[in-house]
Amino acid sequence: MKSLFIIFILLPLMAPSGRAQPLTPKTQKPNIIILFCDDLGYGDLGSFGHPTIRTPHLDRMAAQGMKFTNFYSGSPACSASRYALLTGRLPVRSGFSWVLNPQSERGIHPKEWTLAEGLQEAGYATGCFGKWHLGTTQKAYLPLQNGFDEYIGLPYSNDMIPPQWPSIPLIEGNDTLEMDPDQTQLTALYTQRAINFIKKNKENPFFVYLPYAMPHVPLHPGKSFAGQSLRGAYGDVVEEIDWSAGEILKVLEEEGLAQNTLVFFTSDNGPWIIKDEQGGSAGLFRDGKGSTWEGGMHVPGIAYWPGTVAAGSVCSQPASTLDLYTTCLRLAGQRIPEDRLIDGKNIERLLKGEERQEEAPFFYYGAQALHAVRKGPWKLHIKTSSQTGKEYFEGKLPLLFNLHTDPSEAYDLAAQHPEIVRALKDEIERHQQQLTTEPPFFENDE
Amino acid sequence: MKSLFIIFILLPLMAPSGRAQPLTPKTQKPNIIILFCDDLGYGDLGSFGHPTIRTPHLDRMAAQGMKFTNFYSGSPACSASRYALLTGRLPVRSGFSWVLNPQSERGIHPKEWTLAEGLQEAGYATGCFGKWHLGTTQKAYLPLQNGFDEYIGLPYSNDMIPPQWPSIPLIEGNDTLEMDPDQTQLTALYTQRAINFIKKNKENPFFVYLPYAMPHVPLHPGKSFAGQSLRGAYGDVVEEIDWSAGEILKVLEEEGLAQNTLVFFTSDNGPWIIKDEQGGSAGLFRDGKGSTWEGGMHVPGIAYWPGTVAAGSVCSQPASTLDLYTTCLRLAGQRIPEDRLIDGKNIERLLKGEERQEEAPFFYYGAQALHAVRKGPWKLHIKTSSQTGKEYFEGKLPLLFNLHTDPSEAYDLAAQHPEIVRALKDEIERHQQQLTTEPPFFENDE
Repeated sequence: MKSLFIIFILLPLMAPSGRAQPLTPKTQKPNIIILFCDDLGYGDLGSFGHPTIRTPHLDRMAAQGMKFTNFYSGSPACSASRYALLTGRLPVRSGFSWVLNPQSERGIHPKEWTLAEGLQEAGYATGCFGKWHLGTTQKAYLPLQNGFDEYIGLPYSNDMIPPQWPSIPLIEGNDTLEMDPDQTQLTALYTQRAINFIKKNKENPFFVYLPYAMPHVPLHPGKSFAGQSLRGAYGDVVEEIDWSAGEILKVLEEEGLAQNTLVFFTSDNGPWIIKDEQGGSAGLFRDGKGSTWEGGMHVPGIAYWPGTVAAGSVCSQPASTLDLYTTCLRLAGQRIPEDRLIDGKNIERLLKGEERQEEAPFFYYGAQALHAVRKGPWKLHIKTSSQTGKEYFEGKLPLLFNLHTDPSEAYDLAAQHPEIVRALKDEIERHQQQLTTEPPFFENDE
Repeated sequence: MKSLFIIFILLPLMAPSGRAQPLTPKTQKPNIIILFCDDLGYGDLGSFGHPTIRTPHLDRMAAQGMKFTNFYSGSPACSASRYALLTGRLPVRSGFSWVLNPQSERGIHPKEWTLAEGLQEAGYATGCFGKWHLGTTQKAYLPLQNGFDEYIGLPYSNDMIPPQWPSIPLIEGNDTLEMDPDQTQLTALYTQRAINFIKKNKENPFFVYLPYAMPHVPLHPGKSFAGQSLRGAYGDVVEEIDWSAGEILKVLEEEGLAQNTLVFFTSDNGPWIIKDEQGGSAGLFRDGKGSTWEGGMHVPGIAYWPGTVAAGSVCSQPASTLDLYTTCLRLAGQRIPEDRLIDGKNIERLLKGEERQEEAPFFYYGAQALHAVRKGPWKLHIKTSSQTGKEYFEGKLPLLFNLHTDPSEAYDLAAQHPEIVRALKDEIERHQQQLTTEPPFFENDE
């Protein structure tokens, strides 16, 4: 009898995974962490095929979580992409369609109800540590007025600096902490602030939004990463982000929070390929940032939530940063706004490894204008553009691609499938009609 | 005291990985299995970044083993690549530089001492299950006369069929088993024969060489794979190969052989991109099969050997199929021939996660002629070609690329680094001098 007793004591301690389990969940509502890169391409992580950039922590995050292989940002450019993530709406619905400059009069519209506002109302502690880029010329545009309890970071892109622009501030809360901060210390700073925030708020549900300054040019790796990557400075800054993700996962483990926290890693748009070796790689996709070819918006996605998201799972159904808005609000038991159109879908089913029943069309916006639509495997381009100046199909439009069999958009099938061209054009027409009947918050004048 | 005793009994049963351990190793010499695809591109596996092809078994093999991200085939075309793998020599050293047709007078030279011959002499049971393509017009060219105890498979490419060629035989041993076999059953057949062979020889050391017919066009998925992959027929056949790899790993587990078997997965050359959706993807690399751009020869590599090769490891140092020859012979305690030049290096150090001390130059042959050389990060092209007919740099030669920072060969640095151009040209000159003083076994007349 004594020996049996010992077995019963030992087994629970070792099962199921050998990791320490918290005795009671700290909270019912899951914590949410969004790690958001700037200009990281689909092909720039080890687990997404890069031959020389080393990303062991993100690869482990994918191996122990879910890898999204058809994940999209809401826009091929900075500000609009962040707008989409935080509002769950196609940026065009606000009239917010591209990149704000430091002196822009525009900012996030006061009528928007951000993910942070929703989670704050649901009892979450909310922190933003990194690049904002949703307006700076009015206090109302800054994070603290848009749902965040804490903020530190650059208010816009790290290349918006002298001589073209005035000096860039590092903002803390609503105040300037420092002008022209040392950019080599930003990833470490954001990471440390996020970790402090997690430790401080571990008894509450919390939301951490960590929009890195990197790998946007100019590339500024931290001291211990500079010169370490085979891939050069671009690899250095990606490997530093990988380190940062590893530190975040480590604190979740140490604090016993991992099983009650969804961590989602992705990028705001594709790689800035016109920057040559200073820009990243879209892998097998065509083009990059600033374009509605796949390379511009098809980005890596990784969800990590031990015990909820199955280890080693892969989701190849389309999903986007817009969906994170709706999904995170639902996970928090929060309502989805009904007084405006929300484009994000709840992807809890995908996180649980189930199929999504009906696939909504996905619209690709370039600067202001709708360029393309995807439904199921089919993508129709009605306009195309590229920062490289290349015209890949010599002005031939519309173009139709099957992204399942031809993810690189190499073989135009418009002539073979006029019925699909027509159906997708109808989707576009319905969508544009809706934009007229529900006009954007702003005039589309950027 | 009794309770302590129980703990000591339990712990060894559960550690280290929960998997059953064989009580004694079946053999000292490790078994060797080479899974060799036909025309699979670098970008065609989930773990190498493909967005819609599902390869869970190969991804697990990579996650539990070592992923090689700078691995090369010995040639950008079929026969020569197989020659390189089985002889450890650049195919040009034999005068064997491209693709044999069914009626070619050529075949593997009798003076060659293949990996199978070396392992056979070292006491290995040796089996080849799949595509041979090293000569068929003489019995001396067939596998049984070149070191294999058993053979079944197509003797050349699965597209060398009527109307262009006579009917294709399925060969067993030295005999024709069947004409025009049902190609949809080949992957299953090869897999089953390999499994039977493993079970039959589990008490000996064994060598299994499994050169799949797929994903070479025409694509013939097995019945239960046809129409299953989002990627279409190409995805179907890759997913069937993934299943096959899973079956091989499963039998190793079941027979308690996994810890004493090196399984290496790779491809004979890059994707046949001129076949449009029927061809694969080189991921972020330029061009494909038939070219000495990276897409032609830079292929996926996965080593799996639980307990010896660290789980989740990544090797980004260059290595090639030539190295498998030397490495496998050394693992078997066999000598490396000294009466001829062997190009393959022993990469045991890489498999153990150590750095290779000195990096040898790697030469890229097109049809007959040397096109390029790589040393460290640098690749110099002195000729280029592409089956697509594209000239990527408008005839500008030589071209110099840094493959670490620019794996896609996008930014020519020849003008900036004349000293590196000169050093690599010297390497080429030394190499070509050596080819004159040690002439090939055959005249280079293919």
